[in-house]
Amino acid sequence: MTLTRQDTQALDAQDPLAPLRRQFQLPEGVIYLDGNSLGVLPAAAPSRVAQAVQQEWGEGLIRSWNSANWVTLPQRVGDKIGRLVGAQPGETLAGESTSVNLYKVLAAAILLVKQRGDAARRVIVSERSNFPTDLYIAEGLARQHGFELKLVEPDDIGAHCDATLAVLMLTHVNYRTGRMHDMAAVTRAAHACGALAIWDLAHSAGAVPVDLNGADADFAIGCGYKYLNGGPGAPAFLWVHPRHLRTMEREDLWQPLSGWFGHAAPFEFTPQYRPASGIARFACGTPPVLGLTALETGVDTVLAAEPLGGMAALRRKSLGLTDLFIQLVEQRCAGHGLALVTPTDHGLRGSQVNLARAEGGYAIVQALIARGVIGDFRAPDILRFGFTPLYTRFTEVWDAVEHLRQVLESGEWKEARFNQKAAVT
Amino acid sequence: MTLTRQDTQALDAQDPLAPLRRQFQLPEGVIYLDGNSLGVLPAAAPSRVAQAVQQEWGEGLIRSWNSANWVTLPQRVGDKIGRLVGAQPGETLAGESTSVNLYKVLAAAILLVKQRGDAARRVIVSERSNFPTDLYIAEGLARQHGFELKLVEPDDIGAHCDATLAVLMLTHVNYRTGRMHDMAAVTRAAHACGALAIWDLAHSAGAVPVDLNGADADFAIGCGYKYLNGGPGAPAFLWVHPRHLRTMEREDLWQPLSGWFGHAAPFEFTPQYRPASGIARFACGTPPVLGLTALETGVDTVLAAEPLGGMAALRRKSLGLTDLFIQLVEQRCAGHGLALVTPTDHGLRGSQVNLARAEGGYAIVQALIARGVIGDFRAPDILRFGFTPLYTRFTEVWDAVEHLRQVLESGEWKEARFNQKAAVT
Repeated sequence: MTLTRQDTQALDAQDPLAPLRRQFQLPEGVIYLDGNSLGVLPAAAPSRVAQAVQQEWGEGLIRSWNSANWVTLPQRVGDKIGRLVGAQPGETLAGESTSVNLYKVLAAAILLVKQRGDAARRVIVSERSNFPTDLYIAEGLARQHGFELKLVEPDDIGAHCDATLAVLMLTHVNYRTGRMHDMAAVTRAAHACGALAIWDLAHSAGAVPVDLNGADADFAIGCGYKYLNGGPGAPAFLWVHPRHLRTMEREDLWQPLSGWFGHAAPFEFTPQYRPASGIARFACGTPPVLGLTALETGVDTVLAAEPLGGMAALRRKSLGLTDLFIQLVEQRCAGHGLALVTPTDHGLRGSQVNLARAEGGYAIVQALIARGVIGDFRAPDILRFGFTPLYTRFTEVWDAVEHLRQVLESGEWKEARFNQKAAVT
Repeated sequence: MTLTRQDTQALDAQDPLAPLRRQFQLPEGVIYLDGNSLGVLPAAAPSRVAQAVQQEWGEGLIRSWNSANWVTLPQRVGDKIGRLVGAQPGETLAGESTSVNLYKVLAAAILLVKQRGDAARRVIVSERSNFPTDLYIAEGLARQHGFELKLVEPDDIGAHCDATLAVLMLTHVNYRTGRMHDMAAVTRAAHACGALAIWDLAHSAGAVPVDLNGADADFAIGCGYKYLNGGPGAPAFLWVHPRHLRTMEREDLWQPLSGWFGHAAPFEFTPQYRPASGIARFACGTPPVLGLTALETGVDTVLAAEPLGGMAALRRKSLGLTDLFIQLVEQRCAGHGLALVTPTDHGLRGSQVNLARAEGGYAIVQALIARGVIGDFRAPDILRFGFTPLYTRFTEVWDAVEHLRQVLESGEWKEARFNQKAAVT
């Protein structure tokens, strides 16, 4: 059946989540399909950040550590994120970057494996196309600890679950394919061979249902500035299964970034490190108050979906949006050299659709941006489109594909101005 | 000579830096002597942060990585800080927390020492009363690398400069004594015995003149939210002497937090880590844009002193303020059990004055805060008063001491409400 724009208008009219879009300030004339890179501005963020700057910082000054509860921000925002990823209160901590948080949890996982005394278990396995910073952090830690980092294709992960596997470190939804792992099944496979599983939720938190406790995951980290709408370079988060916190406490294992906010009593100013109980032992530096304040407004936009069905309802709409995009690209952009990278199987798809093109991917994305359709390009050949069900409309999907069709048919992407590489692609 | 309040009014009238106070929004009815814990709000910060939120994030979205130069923020703000601490352009990087930055540079120093193959050199020396997070980070790294962390008194540092010393890690101005090291002399002593010197500038940057290159320091870190007025939990900074960057490049040594922003080409998305040239190899995660934006307005308030004599002029006023405070406390608060902790020698004093009292220190600080005089308490017995020459007036020093005198003479600090410990002291 050939779809029309009217059909997509009908989908918007029936969308029970449509009111959630009012939570955001979207720029005029823009169709934003890049919430998987940087989420849009929550309408509550400007005034909330201004309040933190003017009242909390400007008027309250250091008194705000207590009076504005700055000191508990990492736990409070962490717990809110925890509600979106199947964590219990007190298991999640917001702060620092995804890279720094991965360093902490991967180092902790390595220590836990070493502490068992099984010297044959020295391999970290990840996907070759995992997001680079995850691979770089793992490469660095493997170097430090005499471990081996093996990069494999997603279908070969099972074959690497053996007695040498120490840690399986994966991103739940792959940034360049949009492919999603079955977290529970893969974690089971890791555990069955005696390994630990670390999950990066950068493209999952706020985008797809995640149940960390249900999947019996060991560690997780994630990004604050994508589907959580926390703002540019927002603080990230980390989660640790309580069994590992207990073991670390019992065996006196420290995560490596043993800074003062992870101390049992930071304001006693004692010279010896004594890790805090619970998830706080994974804290390090002074919390980034302005960043956490903006992030909280972003997380709240996702929590606002709870009365409307929460992550399950967001997931239904997300699949509706990505199904529609895939179908329209097939119908309307055929013959232009675009290859679908993202799985059509719902069980294997995140909330993005990625297309490969042998030539011109960067320029096509630039030509689309010039028309107000914002996606992004991932070297060497991926055109990436993210769909945030909180604010993306079905008619926007139609219009985006229509622009893509026009860009391809007109050949306008070949213009020189679309082929000048910027610092950030 | 007994001073009067009129004398301090005359000092304010003659103060060539007095106009710099207009750069700040100071709360009504507050005498703020805690800029060494959290600097006050720059008047430019609210509108600049609002612009970053509304225009750069809200309207520009991901395009702002290029159009608003988000991608170069760590270098741009780092270079501005560098001007205040004797760094050349391209040597300083803003971002992440002081604790995380110390972890990077201390780990790099350890690698540089190890790479020389001198197995006897395995000691890190610091001050017992160094700021705890520095000691905790060092304790964690010593554990990881089989090094020993020795904590000594400041006068015993020289005696520990021997063939076992790998790294001397000190805070230039001590947080609980206000005592300042002679950076050039101490660095020379460390180098003379074959060790490296790391300086924490938390209480120096923006407060006292620092010349990292002149002192031939090896590494430095510092805090963004104290005398740099960068806002609560602001990003910190780090500096590395170019000779170490060259050695690390030649010997392929990586700082441990090998995240994507420290990669030679982060947007090529290649699976192997390849450190960037220069100071960028010390970057890790995605830069915290909102925090860096606020920090830049804070650093600009210090740079605004350049036409008025810069750090030398700020230092002159700072010494005038702390001299006055010491003199007034001696004249007006005698017999109340206060002991001066901070050196009277200008060459040994930072920009704070710390007083010890055997009993009631916490409550006395609370009673002062209730009167609008904000200092802070550092367990177990330190009343701490920071003087920021950018905005502190000589009459405020007079008034603060008068409040202190009244609090002590009235005994009001013994009231129960001043003795209830808050989460953050």
